[in-house]
Amino acid sequence: MNLNQLENNIINKKTFLCLGLDTDIDKIPKHLLSLEDPVFQFNKLLVDRLSKKIAAVKINTAFYEARGVDGWNSLEKTIKHIRDNHPDLFTIADAKRADIGNTSKMYAKAFFDKMNFHSITLSPYMGYDSVTEFLNFEDKYAILLALTSNDGAVDFQLQNELYLSVVSESQKWENSERIMYVVGATKSDNLLKIRNVSEKSFLLIPGVGTQGGDFENVILNSTQKNKRILVNISRAIIYAGNDENFLDSSEKVVDHYNSRTSF
Amino acid sequence: MNLNQLENNIINKKTFLCLGLDTDIDKIPKHLLSLEDPVFQFNKLLVDRLSKKIAAVKINTAFYEARGVDGWNSLEKTIKHIRDNHPDLFTIADAKRADIGNTSKMYAKAFFDKMNFHSITLSPYMGYDSVTEFLNFEDKYAILLALTSNDGAVDFQLQNELYLSVVSESQKWENSERIMYVVGATKSDNLLKIRNVSEKSFLLIPGVGTQGGDFENVILNSTQKNKRILVNISRAIIYAGNDENFLDSSEKVVDHYNSRTSF
Repeated sequence: MNLNQLENNIINKKTFLCLGLDTDIDKIPKHLLSLEDPVFQFNKLLVDRLSKKIAAVKINTAFYEARGVDGWNSLEKTIKHIRDNHPDLFTIADAKRADIGNTSKMYAKAFFDKMNFHSITLSPYMGYDSVTEFLNFEDKYAILLALTSNDGAVDFQLQNELYLSVVSESQKWENSERIMYVVGATKSDNLLKIRNVSEKSFLLIPGVGTQGGDFENVILNSTQKNKRILVNISRAIIYAGNDENFLDSSEKVVDHYNSRTSF
Repeated sequence: MNLNQLENNIINKKTFLCLGLDTDIDKIPKHLLSLEDPVFQFNKLLVDRLSKKIAAVKINTAFYEARGVDGWNSLEKTIKHIRDNHPDLFTIADAKRADIGNTSKMYAKAFFDKMNFHSITLSPYMGYDSVTEFLNFEDKYAILLALTSNDGAVDFQLQNELYLSVVSESQKWENSERIMYVVGATKSDNLLKIRNVSEKSFLLIPGVGTQGGDFENVILNSTQKNKRILVNISRAIIYAGNDENFLDSSEKVVDHYNSRTSF
């Protein structure tokens, strides 16, 4: 899937939503625990139910690594299920990787070759040559952290407008059309500044829902010239319910956010 | 192991070396490929041979993730073997993680609880609350990227002396005595600046060997007041030989570097 197709999907489905699978085995409905690989089953049920009402799925690798080999197995099964059954969903490995060139090449192999994600989130701290290996793949995307949704964003990102330097510098890199940016919803006023230096870039916006970002304000500030945003919501959707009707509860939250979106 | 014990080990063993296990299954000696889990066997043979002549082992997670579940299995077996058999080796997960608090908590669980590494490398880009979950563990350490060894370090780290801000700001954080810093050997002149704001901190120094950093200069600039450094060498040691005598070749490289170290 390329970014024009993703934007078309967003417009056709009338949703900016990215479903965040931060799946914690201690928080999923208890009736799933007797199944083989409950985390995969939970993910599969959610994606199958919600696929027509969301544009993307983001898988947070930390929650899988915390369970070791079993968790990595759930991760591989989840991305495979989505790629095999839901070709219209854009997939994001929320992995916050990046390292020196030969190491980044291995991460690209893990997430783009081995697991076939469309994209991966990366920390920009190490600069150009930590990102470039991810930009060599056609129809694959590197999502750089620009301004994140947590309190600690003030420590370095907001000093000397580092977050804006990350966006403006990276726009000059080769294959920069394959770069997207993370911009936290909790800093929605800064979205306009980022939009000024990256009019055409896709933005991945976390921080709505549990973290408290303002959904309407985010959309207002980021979609004036195009529909190139994904708004990620994780916990507020996936843990909306905790009983046998949890899918109904999750779908209600998705419907609620989609109803607040005008196209 | 705490940092005083690590410093004592360095002095007693007369070595600053950290063995970097960037183990690529396509590069290990061919005669190992017929074994079950050749990557683990290669790592085990290297660590068992070199353990008396090195102070630490750094495992680069990318090389394991690139092989999926099999790779994660090799990773878990390698760290378990080291912790069970070589209690005097300090272990580093070179994972370059960090995310919002509840996600960092999962990464800490993966690397400190599940796998029992002594330490993990982290990108500081997301600030304080992306690191703090790693600092709650006694005798566990967060190794923040300050100034890395790659060319891209100039893009952001060297702008407005961001790398120095990372060191000086993070020294103010709670439990900051559990923070170490990555400082690339290829930027050894900057080591003195970092030493001025972090006299007692342990530094992890990559970039010697294949990347070309100057070993003597690095040691001169970072050990004037204590012996709190680890110099990581990966490819130049582990791929020193490629036949049945590869352990002899690797040991020669280790001996070469240790002979250039005075205590």
